[in-house]
Formats: sequence, C-alpha cells, structure tokens
Amino acid sequence: MKHKERIERALSALQERTYYAPYPENPRAYAEDGDAIGKEAFQKQLSNPFVGLVDEGNLGYIGEEVSPYMMVGLGVQYPKFSSEILVNRAQTAHNEWKKLSVENRADLLIDMLDAVSNRFFELGYATMHTTGQSFIMSFQASGPHANDRAMESVALGFHELTRYSSQVDWVKNMGKFDLTIKKNFKPVSKGVGLVIGCSTFPTWNTVPGVFANLIAGNTAIIKPHPKSVLPIAIVVAEMQKVLTQNGLSPYTVQLAVDTTAEPITKELAKHSLVKLIDYTGGSTFGEYIESLPGKTVFTEKAGVNSVILESINDSKSVFGNLAFSFSLYSGQMCTAPQNIFVPAEGITTAEGQLSFDEVVNGLSAAVKGLAENPKMGAFVMGAIQNDTTRNRVKDTLNKNGGTELSAEVTHPEFPDARLQTPTVMGVDAASNIWREECFGPIVFVVKTKDAESALQLAANMASSKGAITCLCYSTNEDYMQKVEEDMNAVFTPVSFNFTGAAFVNQHAAFSDFHVSGGNPSGNATFTDSLYINRRFVWVGNRFA
Amino acid sequence: MKHKERIERALSALQERTYYAPYPENPRAYAEDGDAIGKEAFQKQLSNPFVGLVDEGNLGYIGEEVSPYMMVGLGVQYPKFSSEILVNRAQTAHNEWKKLSVENRADLLIDMLDAVSNRFFELGYATMHTTGQSFIMSFQASGPHANDRAMESVALGFHELTRYSSQVDWVKNMGKFDLTIKKNFKPVSKGVGLVIGCSTFPTWNTVPGVFANLIAGNTAIIKPHPKSVLPIAIVVAEMQKVLTQNGLSPYTVQLAVDTTAEPITKELAKHSLVKLIDYTGGSTFGEYIESLPGKTVFTEKAGVNSVILESINDSKSVFGNLAFSFSLYSGQMCTAPQNIFVPAEGITTAEGQLSFDEVVNGLSAAVKGLAENPKMGAFVMGAIQNDTTRNRVKDTLNKNGGTELSAEVTHPEFPDARLQTPTVMGVDAASNIWREECFGPIVFVVKTKDAESALQLAANMASSKGAITCLCYSTNEDYMQKVEEDMNAVFTPVSFNFTGAAFVNQHAAFSDFHVSGGNPSGNATFTDSLYINRRFVWVGNRFA
Repeated sequence: MKHKERIERALSALQERTYYAPYPENPRAYAEDGDAIGKEAFQKQLSNPFVGLVDEGNLGYIGEEVSPYMMVGLGVQYPKFSSEILVNRAQTAHNEWKKLSVENRADLLIDMLDAVSNRFFELGYATMHTTGQSFIMSFQASGPHANDRAMESVALGFHELTRYSSQVDWVKNMGKFDLTIKKNFKPVSKGVGLVIGCSTFPTWNTVPGVFANLIAGNTAIIKPHPKSVLPIAIVVAEMQKVLTQNGLSPYTVQLAVDTTAEPITKELAKHSLVKLIDYTGGSTFGEYIESLPGKTVFTEKAGVNSVILESINDSKSVFGNLAFSFSLYSGQMCTAPQNIFVPAEGITTAEGQLSFDEVVNGLSAAVKGLAENPKMGAFVMGAIQNDTTRNRVKDTLNKNGGTELSAEVTHPEFPDARLQTPTVMGVDAASNIWREECFGPIVFVVKTKDAESALQLAANMASSKGAITCLCYSTNEDYMQKVEEDMNAVFTPVSFNFTGAAFVNQHAAFSDFHVSGGNPSGNATFTDSLYINRRFVWVGNRFA
Repeated sequence: MKHKERIERALSALQERTYYAPYPENPRAYAEDGDAIGKEAFQKQLSNPFVGLVDEGNLGYIGEEVSPYMMVGLGVQYPKFSSEILVNRAQTAHNEWKKLSVENRADLLIDMLDAVSNRFFELGYATMHTTGQSFIMSFQASGPHANDRAMESVALGFHELTRYSSQVDWVKNMGKFDLTIKKNFKPVSKGVGLVIGCSTFPTWNTVPGVFANLIAGNTAIIKPHPKSVLPIAIVVAEMQKVLTQNGLSPYTVQLAVDTTAEPITKELAKHSLVKLIDYTGGSTFGEYIESLPGKTVFTEKAGVNSVILESINDSKSVFGNLAFSFSLYSGQMCTAPQNIFVPAEGITTAEGQLSFDEVVNGLSAAVKGLAENPKMGAFVMGAIQNDTTRNRVKDTLNKNGGTELSAEVTHPEFPDARLQTPTVMGVDAASNIWREECFGPIVFVVKTKDAESALQLAANMASSKGAITCLCYSTNEDYMQKVEEDMNAVFTPVSFNFTGAAFVNQHAAFSDFHVSGGNPSGNATFTDSLYINRRFVWVGNRFA
C-alpha cells in the first residue's frame, strides 16, 4: 500500500487529537510562483466553459456565479446533466468502485488529494470570488484545511473498514470434537451518495462526505450551490483525472450543477438509487432531507452560537478577540458567535467593573477599530456572499430599531466589493430578536438577569435551535465547570477565555470535532466514527 | 480497573472474530448442584410476588405469564409503576450514573454479569416456562449467551468511549510563536433509554441494548413483553443489587412491567425524556418506533430468511441439518429459515438428481423423523410461546390447502405442552404464501424456474421484507460466489453448506454480527461500533 505511512500518521493524530497538518505533502502546494500561476489559471476560466470535467452526454452548459468582490458574473459555464444520467452513471461506477480493496481506494483518494494540492492557489481565487472569503481564508479553507478534513475521512475510514479480521477459522470445542467454521467479514457499501454543498464553504463542507463515501466503497454525486461551483469543480476535475489515469470510471465522482431557477436537488435526493445524503445549509431544507425515508443522512444545519461573558482579566484582549471572531468572514461562518450574554450588572475585570453598556460599546469600538484598520478591515471581513445575507441584517436592524455600525471600510483592490461591517447591538433578554439565527454580520449583546441566567439562556438556545460552538469568559473556576457541564449536556463544546491567536470560529482537523451531531445544528460530526460507519454495513459469511 | 483484563480478552476476540466464551467466569454458573438450586428458586417464585426488585412507590402488583409447557399461569407478580415515576427516576439516576468514569461503569457492569451468572439455572427454568424454549436452549440463550452479548456491549463500549485522548495540549507553530490550547474530549451520554423486549428471547434480545446504554452513561428502563417477564426480572434484580451494594441508585436500571390489557410502551416511548429506544419485535410496531422524532432508535424487526438449494453432496446430512434448523424452537427464532428455494428441475446430489417433490418429501420426512425421535422431538422443538403463533400457522395452511405435518410428539414431563411440529409445504414461486413472514413452525419449499431465479427471489425478499440469515447449499464455486455477492449486496450474511453441528440459526457472540442493520429486518447490529457510538456524543472543550 503506497500511502500506508501517511494514513498511520493521520490516525495517530486523530486518536491523540494533536495538531497535524498532512498538507502540503506536496512542494507545489505553497510554491513561490504558485500565486501567479493560480491567479492566471483562475482568470483563464472566466467567461469560458470549465475545463477538466468529463462532459459526455451533457444537456448544455450553465453557470450563474457572481464575484462578491467584483460584483460581476464569473461567466464560467459547467456541463449540465439530467438527474437520471447522473444517478445511473454513479450506480454503474459503484459496481466497479466497491470491488476495489480498501487499501487501493485509500491510495487513490490520497493521490486525488495530492492532485488537488497542486491547485491550492487557484482554489483560493475561485473560493474568494464565489464565497466572498478573503484570499487567505479562501486559500486555507478550500485548500489545505479542506484537504485535511478529507484526509480525516480517508484515514478514519481506512481504520474502521479494516478493524476486524477479514477471514478467520472460528473453532469451538464441542466436547468430543472441534466445530470449525470458516468465516469472512466484509464492509458492504450502500451505493450512490449525494453530497449537497453550500454557498459559503463549497469545498470544506463538501469533501469530508465525498471522501467518506468513497473510502467506504460508495460513489458520490456532488450538487454544489449554483452560486458557488468553481472551487468544487476544480476538486472534482482532479478526482476524475486520477480515476481516468487509473483506468477507473470518472463517474465515481460527479458534479451535478443546476441553477437557482431550475434546481435539481430534491429530484436527486428522492431518487430511489440515492442511498446516502450529505447536506450543509439552512435548517428548513435540512429537515426535509432528514425526513426522506430510507436514506442515510448527514446534516450540518443552522445554529445559534453563544458567548458568555461572566468575568475577565483584560477587556482589551477579550474585546479584540471577540471583534475578530465577529468580523472574520463577516459572521458568515457556521462557527461565528451570534449572541453575547452579559449579566445586567456587567462583568468584573482586573481593571474594575464594566457595565453592560460599557461592554456593548467596547465590543462595538473593537469591531470598528478592526474594520477601519487598513491592514485588517476588508482582509478579515471578506465580502458578503449574497444580497440575502446583507438584507437580512439590514431588515433585522430596521425592524428592531437598531443602527448599522458605521465604519469606513473599503477594499483597496475591489472598490465594488459587497462589504458590510458587523453590527454589535445591545438587547434585553426579554427581546425575541436574538432567539433565531440571523446569519450574517450582526451580533446581539443580550442583557441577562445574572451569570446563571446567561448560562441557562445559552444552553436553552443550543438545545432548541442548535449550536456548534460556545465561548465563555470567566475567571471563576466553579462557574467555568458549570458552563462546561451544562453546555456539554446539550452537546455543545465550550472554548474558555480565548485571547490572542485562539479563535472560537476555528475548528482544527484531526483535533476538534466539528458539529457535535447532538443538537439541532446537525446530526453528524467531522469526523467521528459514526461519520464513517453509517456509510456501510458489516456482513459476515460462514463456510462449513 | 478491576476487570481490565477481561475487557481486553473480549476486545481481542471481537476484533479477530474468534470463538470466545467469557462466561462462566464464575464456578457457580455451571455448578453440579446448580440445576436443583435453580429449579427450586424458580418454583419458589410461582404464585408469589417477585422478590428482588426495588418496589417503592409501586401501584400494585401485576403479572400474566403462562407456561407453554404446563399451560397454567405462573402467578408471579411484579411491581407496577407509572411511566412518569419510571422516567423521572431514570432521569435522576442518569445525573449520578453519567458522572462515573467509563472504567468504573465497566467494572460495575461486569460485576452485574457475574451476579447474573449465579442464577443461570434459574434463568433457564424462567425462560423455559415463559418462552417455551427447551430447557437447554433456555439455559444457554438467557444465561451464558445473553451474558456474552451483554459483555460485547461492555467491551466494545469501553473501547469506543476511551478511543481518544481525554486531555491534550494542542500545539500549533505560528511562525514566531507556538499557539497552545488545552483540550479535553468527553463522550456525553444522551439520557434515559427504553429497551422494549420480546416474548421469545426476553433476555438475549434485551441485555445488549441495556448494557450498551449503561456503559455509555445512559440509564435504562426495560419494558418486557407482559408474557415474558420473569427472566429479565431476575437479571434486573441482580443489577439493582449490585447498584445498591455500591451506593448507587437502583433506578439506573428499572423494570417497567405492564399488561396486554393496559400497555404502557407507547407512553414510555413518546416521553420527551426518553432519548434512546431499543426494540425487538414485529415490524409494524418497529416502524412506529423508528418513526418517533428525536429518538435514537435500534430495532430488530421481522425478516424472512431463505435457504437456497442448488446442488449438494449428501441429501441425508443436508436434510438432517435443515430439519434441525426448522425444528429448533419450532421456527420461533428470528434466524430460522422460512423459504427453501429449489429449482423446478430439482437438485444434483452425489447420489444423482433429486426432483423438487423428492426434496419436499425428504425434508418433511427428516422433520418427522426428528420430531418422533424421543431423544430429540420436544427437546429440540420446545413449545409454542403463544396461541397466535400456533393459529397463524394453522390458518395459513387452511387458506392455502396445506396439511399440517402429522407426527407423534409428546413431552415426557409436560403432557399439556403447546407443541406443534414444523410443517414443510411445497409451493410454486408464483404463489404469494411465502412472500410474507409467517412466524412459527412452517417452512415453504418454493419451486423456482432455476437456480438463478432462486437467488433472485431470495435477494428480493431480503431487500423488500428483510432477512437476518441466508443458507445456501451448492457445490458450484461460481454459483456460491454469486450468492455471496448478491445476498451481501442486500446486507444479508450467507452460510454455506452447513451440515453436522453447524446451524444457520446460531449466531455466536464476538464473531457473528446479528442482524446487519442494512435491510428491513432491523436498523442495528449486535454488535458493531454503531450500536455503541449512536448512544453518546463526542464533545471537546478548549482552554486558552
């Protein structure tokens, strides 16, 4: 097995939960001339049919992506296929792919990741101009970090799929004789998997399910968000190339592009041959997907993440850390905080008591400072992926008498970029405004009766609406323990007293479980063993 | 940790899938005077309130079990509780139980199994006179074999719950400095589990879910079938005793007895605090349980198991093996074959071709021979658990012009035993009679176009109605491979050419997965890692 050692290193990190970054294993991934080459490759695709996907049998070319930086259509066109042809090809490919050994599949999948890593810079530009992420975040999220999460699936999958003896002589002494039965044990794949992508993290949220399906012997049809296709198209092109080079069907992984006017997601999801569905996106559609009978479903839906401010040492470092978390990709990360619970009496700091209003103003000022810092500003916030997100925040403020934070931010390279500084709005716990997810650049500082009530509200939100993260600032050991216990009981991880370079938004592959699967924010986790084992079935045969 | 070594031995067997029998670890389990003591203990319970369950707060005593051997009521009375009190006690106990370490829980659970093993003989008599199983089967199934399956849950649970570092310093080099984040990782239990038992295997099908819940930190309410309470009452009594001896709440595991007139299963299952449900029984109720929102559900429902007869060497050993499998507990095992697919042209044997009719007659004769053999007969067949089973078979025969196999069988000790010899009925593939589960002592020999069609019908049945086992007789390597491939693809294990002491009905703990979870016969497996991991959620906390 070619990549055995890499699998073993990844597995060791996974088990120890230590820092591990298997990419770049490839010197090209961060090459000096990589940026120029990647930018050129990206620009070549603009206003052209996408190059690299197998397109036989297509029903024409479609594409409707718009750059949130340039505010013009990218003009990249992708082959369109009927659902029937996609599913039938995936089913046929499954008959071939499932017969490969787990070792062989793992080697091929790691080859694919290596191939993708040649195009990290191009992926960076493609992600920037579809999602609105800053270039650095785009590069990281769609490049090495996405590859890390895919590698998690491959490594853990390899472990789970090979954890039992494949053959054994079972011998039972029956007194006068031994009864011997030869047995084999096989992980049997489920069939065709559909992976439904989102507009903000088109590869990071997609590749874990794709690679988990593939390592388990299933095939994958990827249905990207129609406004965020290019990054995952690059990944699929590289995967299909490796398949073809190895004499295998490129239809083992396919891209199913549609348009907002004529979506095909439901048609694909309901297809009787589609056995597995991975989904990232809004809760309403996620619940529909979860309700489909006879499917194995993995979801990451919406959540409302909380910060609990109880007591701190240094307000500057705390407000700075929070402002960065609010601003990073303008609150469009599923891990971004929305509600900041602060006791009505304010919080104690090493410098004295800070009133509730002082906290609101301090956070607002920290956001404004970051936004107006020309070295941070638009480079941290990125652009807003779509008008719906921007309008949602504006509407929420209008309806509730809030005022958008006024900050002078421009992007030096893209004057037309769709920018929106995060707004920090102080509200009373009795208000309802903070009780729903308001996806986008807005946070609510919620005035609670006391610290105990702050925790209760955060736990209730996690339990009823879902939460992916929780951040708590406290210098009180007893309170911290209570927060850990109560938030964990509603299956929400807690980060404590993050300052400096530790940010609650960031979940590291191989160490941090992403989404617990235990509350309404989703039913699955990157990457626990359920994420792998639900994709296949153990079957044992016996031979007398 | 007291029982570390036993856990490790069990885990090693599980991984290698080798023969392993951890019980008796206790010399009392098979003691010479065990039978007499066990019988006496059983007899003492008759017509009396059951001794050993915590009964504070009961609403009176109930019981309606009838011995299928004596055909009289056992008269054992069990404390009755309201659903509300059961669930509230389980919830309170959960707050205590979940805080114990995995090591501590594993030690206590193994202590419980050891305590149960003191009462294997009594469990044998209790099972015999509730289920109708023969004494030997009762002893094995409810004693050592049930303990084996419970031990599987404990050992695999221990492994899964401790597979990651519980604490780690995560260190990432950031160029000019190292970012260090302290992390912990916790398996968080889900809460109260309900385990719904069946009438035929009151402990074997119940304890895996109970022990899986408990090792994962959940508590368990067991709702036994009202006609099959005594065996699991003995188990619960021993478990509560160990809990009390260790200063823990006995309500960590509770028995929720009801009556057929006033069932409480739905009330318990729907209770908002019940988070996990294990179920063994009919498909209709199983599908209802699976449909309940917000529950983690494990089911073993009905299946229709197939035998494919294609070619054999020696008809006597094959018919003998099949007759035993048909007769063992009179077809009341979930692993018992129902449909025997035989090509219209008959089958080749080393002694020449056997026509379809010769196969039907040969199987019928083998069953009759076994039934009338005084050393086998009632000792293999056991008694019929309830009249519904007996009447179902009679009705099916009446409606389809079949004739019950006439054999002279009596039980030497219990002249009133509800006995029913399995009937072997030849039918055409075009008939519908074999297309539904007919639970009880009847098998259909189905005349198929050819061997290919036999396999297709068996695979279709497994896929549409579910199947737990498949037995194939073939001397043709190519055909065997095709059967293995096609049946495995519908998640059904195949046993090949079983003769002698190897029987398709028997699934060995630590080696054979019981129910694949991939077809309609159930959604879970004794015991794969999903059976454990779906009962808790990984949560990681981070400390700057």
